[in-house]
Amino acid sequence: MNSVRRSSIILVLFAWLVGTVQAADDPLASWNDGAAKQAILSFVVATTDTSSPNYVPPEDRIATFDQDGTLWVEHPMYTQVVYCLDRVPAVVKAKPELAKVEPFKTVLSGDREAIAKLSMDDLFKILAATLTGMSVDEFKAEAEKWLATAKNARWNRPYTDLTYLPMQELLKYLRANGYKTYIVTGGGQDFVRVYSERVYGIPPEQVVGTAGETKYGYRKDGKPFLTKEPKLLLDNNNAGKPEGIHLMIGRRPYAAFGNSTGDRQMLEYTKAGDGARLSMILLHDDAKREYAYGPAQGLPDTRVGTFTQALYDEAEKQGWIVISMKNDWKRIFGFEGKP
Amino acid sequence: MNSVRRSSIILVLFAWLVGTVQAADDPLASWNDGAAKQAILSFVVATTDTSSPNYVPPEDRIATFDQDGTLWVEHPMYTQVVYCLDRVPAVVKAKPELAKVEPFKTVLSGDREAIAKLSMDDLFKILAATLTGMSVDEFKAEAEKWLATAKNARWNRPYTDLTYLPMQELLKYLRANGYKTYIVTGGGQDFVRVYSERVYGIPPEQVVGTAGETKYGYRKDGKPFLTKEPKLLLDNNNAGKPEGIHLMIGRRPYAAFGNSTGDRQMLEYTKAGDGARLSMILLHDDAKREYAYGPAQGLPDTRVGTFTQALYDEAEKQGWIVISMKNDWKRIFGFEGKP
Repeated sequence: MNSVRRSSIILVLFAWLVGTVQAADDPLASWNDGAAKQAILSFVVATTDTSSPNYVPPEDRIATFDQDGTLWVEHPMYTQVVYCLDRVPAVVKAKPELAKVEPFKTVLSGDREAIAKLSMDDLFKILAATLTGMSVDEFKAEAEKWLATAKNARWNRPYTDLTYLPMQELLKYLRANGYKTYIVTGGGQDFVRVYSERVYGIPPEQVVGTAGETKYGYRKDGKPFLTKEPKLLLDNNNAGKPEGIHLMIGRRPYAAFGNSTGDRQMLEYTKAGDGARLSMILLHDDAKREYAYGPAQGLPDTRVGTFTQALYDEAEKQGWIVISMKNDWKRIFGFEGKP
Repeated sequence: MNSVRRSSIILVLFAWLVGTVQAADDPLASWNDGAAKQAILSFVVATTDTSSPNYVPPEDRIATFDQDGTLWVEHPMYTQVVYCLDRVPAVVKAKPELAKVEPFKTVLSGDREAIAKLSMDDLFKILAATLTGMSVDEFKAEAEKWLATAKNARWNRPYTDLTYLPMQELLKYLRANGYKTYIVTGGGQDFVRVYSERVYGIPPEQVVGTAGETKYGYRKDGKPFLTKEPKLLLDNNNAGKPEGIHLMIGRRPYAAFGNSTGDRQMLEYTKAGDGARLSMILLHDDAKREYAYGPAQGLPDTRVGTFTQALYDEAEKQGWIVISMKNDWKRIFGFEGKP
């Protein structure tokens, strides 16, 4: 081997090594270089560098994440709604008179098209029947059992596998920089709490979600327990998100992440704070690797996770950063092979 | 100096040195040796020693503390009520028509006896008028201003100086052992959050308290803000305490600390969990150094912080540990000289 050849090989090896090290060092390795990734990196430097005019002390570093459609797949239907529909046979078994009553009759029919057309009122009846009336411990055990066995049809995997790898990296990156990460979801607080620690590293007390009342009572042996009541306490959608954040956290976040009209007020409230604030909104524009829906930017309309053109225009006006799933993300899921 | 004399001196010096080191090492130095202190030490060993059958993983270590009468002085009147009474003149200035309306008329009269006799309904009117109707930021600024200047009459010190040193030591000791410490108070969540970090090292998101609704809206310049509404969302007393704990924390505590009938359900709920659980209740039996009230154990009756004999009997029956302020605490306040 002559020395030029040897040098070339060494150079190639060196470049490969450096590339590998860089990739391993990149906390946002699944993000393509671009405005979205740069906005995150700049925000973290601006708020954590002690010499920065926008430095934020660690105890104030709060970041809030919507869940459905922001941290994991929400199409064609929210995972919790799938859970509730799956629970209907057990509920009807306990109360056979429901079998002939709508919307339970339609759910039992298994007619997917008819189920997809159920009204919001009907869905609320199903949610109330399947999410309340049991103790908080019974609910937790049931939800855990379902999550361990149920599989998403398209990917044939547990629902908890369908989290977005770039967002998992973002959660870890923010936490490594002193941020306390919260889920702020329109979904059920108790449902998300069942898996949030395991799936996102977010403990139950850092999940803010739609919540019903609970009622304190005693079993026959005198042991106290809490029952989930069919009475809404916190509707954690739209304006309910900043209101829920105030109730549960007590401070304005420095960073917030969402994907639909239900996140608008949280993103507004976050961005309106003093100093450096980051509001980001995920656009599902990747029909091939996940789903494409809006109707912003000419994408197909949807009932689940609506992202209107008005919201897109507000994002531009207010300086929120739009994340394009198609262009900004190298990989979508952790179970995919390396790029 | 003969060698016997020298040995004696060395022994005395050694004993003194060991004593000093022990005191400096004692995380509960303001607690007298006794059943209460021993119960705390045993509980911490049982739940944090990895070889213990009752070991609790760090992420599950939750301890909840009532505030008024448990962490700081509540007699003769809750500090927040003093704040609300002090705010009445400003409220009447903004709404002069209230000057002739009860209970505002009585408060403005300054007649302490008449004020002390106000009914709960009257007090609620005063709380609603002084704690709601402003933005959450305005409320925070007002409460901070008051806390910086108002002084307790008996000790002539800021109210935030009147925390119990033994409980401050207990908070720190539990945190040093991986416990997340929460305040779970019947008082106003937003009020306590103003000073909880500075006074107890407890951040706003770890304060669970009585809370009203907030309402999201926009200023003239388009900036969003939250207004405190006169509508009760969470009445964090009695059964409301375990219900509030479920809403805000999502898990049963391993340790809970209270001092009155309003804490009963929290102490029951905590103690009823599996494994090692610690429920402790503080008896104010020290008229000389603080106050004496019950009416448990023949102590004088009170409207503020009632500790009934029935509650005392339940404590014995359920295995809660009663803390006697008089017998278990060496010092009450941090501002007192060393014993």
